[in-house]
Amino acid sequence: MTGTNIDDLNVSQDYQGPAIVLVNAQMGENIGAAARAMLNCGLNDLRLVNPRDGWPSDKAVKMSSGALNRMPPVRVFTTTEEAVADCQFVLATTARPRDMFKPVYNARSGAESMYQSIQNGQRCAYLFGAERTGLENDDVALAHGVLTVPLNPGFSSLNLGQGVLLAAYEWYQKSLDIDNAPPPSHAEAKDIASIETAEIFYNRLEDELEKHNFFRSEGKETSMRRIIRSLIGRAQPTNQELQTLHGVVSALIGNKM
Amino acid sequence: MTGTNIDDLNVSQDYQGPAIVLVNAQMGENIGAAARAMLNCGLNDLRLVNPRDGWPSDKAVKMSSGALNRMPPVRVFTTTEEAVADCQFVLATTARPRDMFKPVYNARSGAESMYQSIQNGQRCAYLFGAERTGLENDDVALAHGVLTVPLNPGFSSLNLGQGVLLAAYEWYQKSLDIDNAPPPSHAEAKDIASIETAEIFYNRLEDELEKHNFFRSEGKETSMRRIIRSLIGRAQPTNQELQTLHGVVSALIGNKM
Repeated sequence: MTGTNIDDLNVSQDYQGPAIVLVNAQMGENIGAAARAMLNCGLNDLRLVNPRDGWPSDKAVKMSSGALNRMPPVRVFTTTEEAVADCQFVLATTARPRDMFKPVYNARSGAESMYQSIQNGQRCAYLFGAERTGLENDDVALAHGVLTVPLNPGFSSLNLGQGVLLAAYEWYQKSLDIDNAPPPSHAEAKDIASIETAEIFYNRLEDELEKHNFFRSEGKETSMRRIIRSLIGRAQPTNQELQTLHGVVSALIGNKM
Repeated sequence: MTGTNIDDLNVSQDYQGPAIVLVNAQMGENIGAAARAMLNCGLNDLRLVNPRDGWPSDKAVKMSSGALNRMPPVRVFTTTEEAVADCQFVLATTARPRDMFKPVYNARSGAESMYQSIQNGQRCAYLFGAERTGLENDDVALAHGVLTVPLNPGFSSLNLGQGVLLAAYEWYQKSLDIDNAPPPSHAEAKDIASIETAEIFYNRLEDELEKHNFFRSEGKETSMRRIIRSLIGRAQPTNQELQTLHGVVSALIGNKM
């Protein structure tokens, strides 16, 4: 076992380790601790969705022990959807997958799947929710799977920096183990649709369903949004498959194609 | 996979997970963070050697998020030798084994050896040094091996709480024997639709597409059949998800549901 070329982990512009996406993080200190944990494990793509106290943050810089100054600039987004628009494999860290059928990973098996996806050329991300409340259901719905760290069930609450550390640590350990070739994927990475492309289909489908009075009862739309995203997203659709689904919708509503 | 009886991790007086020994820890906050990380991973035997700011510590209690109140009393010693006097297998966490020939473990292989020792009835401990200076040579000399966590060599410094978390995390994963855990599934087996149930949906969809003149060109039907089966089938749909898809088709073609 020799491992990844470590220099590349810090230096290369083209490095495609998974992104860490912190959604609605409250405290700058926790963002800084997350950045430190990331760089400890060779990760440098930190993305923030609506950080409560704004960005940049002096507290984050201080708590990062120099990590933030050695990483590319943190990117800030207003929605989770934008933050993962370029990603093809996304894991949501949450203790409780709700209403949704998603593959459930632990930190180690999640790192293995993410490593394989990256080897296949996919862009990947881990989603983390706010300190006390965690991820919203709509954020979880965007993800291809759920990651739950096995911890003492009687005392399982981790702070944000520690959660990022464990996910990043497992990813790094896996990345050092280059002897295991990745298993084949169902498609070339470039063919797998990005979240953005998939969202275009979901939104179109929802528009059509709205027009056809599908959402009669309150709450049905929310539940439907999640079910469709969970089902299609889990399969990591290719661009061609999404084109086919567009064609199916067009045919069913009676449009010329 | 059975693993440790989880209830015992918190309750039993006789529980013999490894002790965590913090030598010359400076900040109460770090002791508290270490306690929290320990209990996250089912460990409850915390020992301190000459904590700089004394013991007990309000800062430690606050930072432990309740962990210190749920663990047996922390024991305080004046020398490392006393702190590990009852132990039969001790690993010293340090980046640099100096002047000494000791087996070198990473966090995972260290946890495996420690787990084996505990299974054999031995008492075990991890030694951690002071925040900036680490363990003294005399402390390392007491240990049976050295534990070094593989991290980004360009940015490898962990704070004390994070170091304890990674050692304890690996021990806990080993105690759960997660390598033998079944691969992740997104749903209970009974909820996953049978091929027959899925075929009912595919056939219905194809009938509707036929009626809507989707299959104009020769060969399009075959290709479409494969694409839809491949996409939906790959996701292993649940019965509920297939019901939703039926509802979507009904809505799009304008039927009452």
